[in-house]
Amino acid sequence: MTRLHLSSGSGFPVLGRHSPRLRRLRELDTPAGRSRTGRFLLEGVRVLAEALEAGLDLEWLVVAQGAPEEAFNLAGRAARAGAEVCLLDAEVIERLAPTRTSQGLLGVARMPSTDLQHVLQGNPVVILEGIQDPGNTGTLLRTARAAGAGGAVLVGGADPFNSRAVRAASGATFRLPLVRLNPEQAPMLLQALDQAGFGLACAEAHDGQDLYQAPFPTRMALVLGGEVRGVSEACRRAAVARWTIPLAGDCESLNVAAAAAVILFEARRRRLQAGGREGPGA
Amino acid sequence: MTRLHLSSGSGFPVLGRHSPRLRRLRELDTPAGRSRTGRFLLEGVRVLAEALEAGLDLEWLVVAQGAPEEAFNLAGRAARAGAEVCLLDAEVIERLAPTRTSQGLLGVARMPSTDLQHVLQGNPVVILEGIQDPGNTGTLLRTARAAGAGGAVLVGGADPFNSRAVRAASGATFRLPLVRLNPEQAPMLLQALDQAGFGLACAEAHDGQDLYQAPFPTRMALVLGGEVRGVSEACRRAAVARWTIPLAGDCESLNVAAAAAVILFEARRRRLQAGGREGPGA
Repeated sequence: MTRLHLSSGSGFPVLGRHSPRLRRLRELDTPAGRSRTGRFLLEGVRVLAEALEAGLDLEWLVVAQGAPEEAFNLAGRAARAGAEVCLLDAEVIERLAPTRTSQGLLGVARMPSTDLQHVLQGNPVVILEGIQDPGNTGTLLRTARAAGAGGAVLVGGADPFNSRAVRAASGATFRLPLVRLNPEQAPMLLQALDQAGFGLACAEAHDGQDLYQAPFPTRMALVLGGEVRGVSEACRRAAVARWTIPLAGDCESLNVAAAAAVILFEARRRRLQAGGREGPGA
Repeated sequence: MTRLHLSSGSGFPVLGRHSPRLRRLRELDTPAGRSRTGRFLLEGVRVLAEALEAGLDLEWLVVAQGAPEEAFNLAGRAARAGAEVCLLDAEVIERLAPTRTSQGLLGVARMPSTDLQHVLQGNPVVILEGIQDPGNTGTLLRTARAAGAGGAVLVGGADPFNSRAVRAASGATFRLPLVRLNPEQAPMLLQALDQAGFGLACAEAHDGQDLYQAPFPTRMALVLGGEVRGVSEACRRAAVARWTIPLAGDCESLNVAAAAAVILFEARRRRLQAGGREGPGA
């Protein structure tokens, strides 16, 4: 009963299981709810710790009565950072949590916002064009950040503030400048990339230049296409570099997140070997 | 009604929705059922086409009445390759299919079997140690095959014949020689690797050799640890190479499948640049 004692002695107010405020949490599990409120859900100790470290504006946190000590430690940190913290029945939290990895913690934060001009100050930048799987979206953002990308533009596809995407991104959602565009805005994006001096690059399954022998644009915008349709014809036409990763034997392709890892880290390797800090490659 | 006409005109016998044979399909959705029968489930057109191309011993295929034409084309190919094909109510197939991507096709095949000595004839080899997520397991096998790995050893962790793993592997399950071991067999594996002249390599989050500056073993066994616990202490002690991927800024780590892609393709790049076919690196 130590755990119950800890929680009841935490000093946080208890929220009733029928509180109308819970509707707000449920609503954030949908794209429409996130879009309407400008807020999203964060689940679990790791994601919430990353959010606090990134200085995200965490507004509200519910912690399960009887949750593990680390959940209460995190709730304490959130409260000191200005978040409102409430206790809630563990079962109710489990029912509300989208991915079953809440560990008794659910938070609400304002979606960080940035604009395209800010993203285009980084180099390289990554463009996710119609990536449908939230896990792929999150993994791509995580890999892009780790490879030193300055930002990402998402054209259509999965919402990066979906809970599965946030979990897979391992903090990149809060750290990497992100912009979301509609597919109709793609021509505007291509123009902005061109004006900012970016060379657009994409991967091709066949007949592209060998990735390991091709020159890399000094300012690189790598576009990654959706799992089924791949890169759009408009982006392919605008690309100054079309690379093929030399795969073994009769292999057709890599998963999009694996292909992105190979290309972005080849760019990083070249940049590190050149000793430079500007531009992704030689 | 064209579709119904196509299916009823296919000449395949119809299986009743209460047929006791359906229990056999349901059983293969569990590790125990696969282990007891030595068989596994395959779902959807793409996975089944890859299995046929790989020459997998496909025993039985059920196709939904009213399934798309490509499903019936595939069923025809399977029948010509010696598989028994039955028609089944579409709803029943949907209920039986583990991942909702069956497209009205479910197959049963014998699990391909190989032994450790066969796997150790390849170079590099990949060791998955306690990878828990079937999607990660499948993606890792797909990446390993595309990078030219000669085989994989799975020590504990997710079953590579789980449907999600099979789908993520995109054919690698049938093409790459695979051996599964219990964690208790790890010392035997380390001894066999040593005797076969393999240098064991692993990735470290911090304080390893810079991946891009380190020499690579001529025969490389890359061990990838589970999502939470990482590489075991026994493997870490046995490793002759401990590499750190130089990540940007304050990044802690990559997803295990992304890290594997970066390392395996760095090995492939070196091998291709050396113009050699033996050994993964310089």
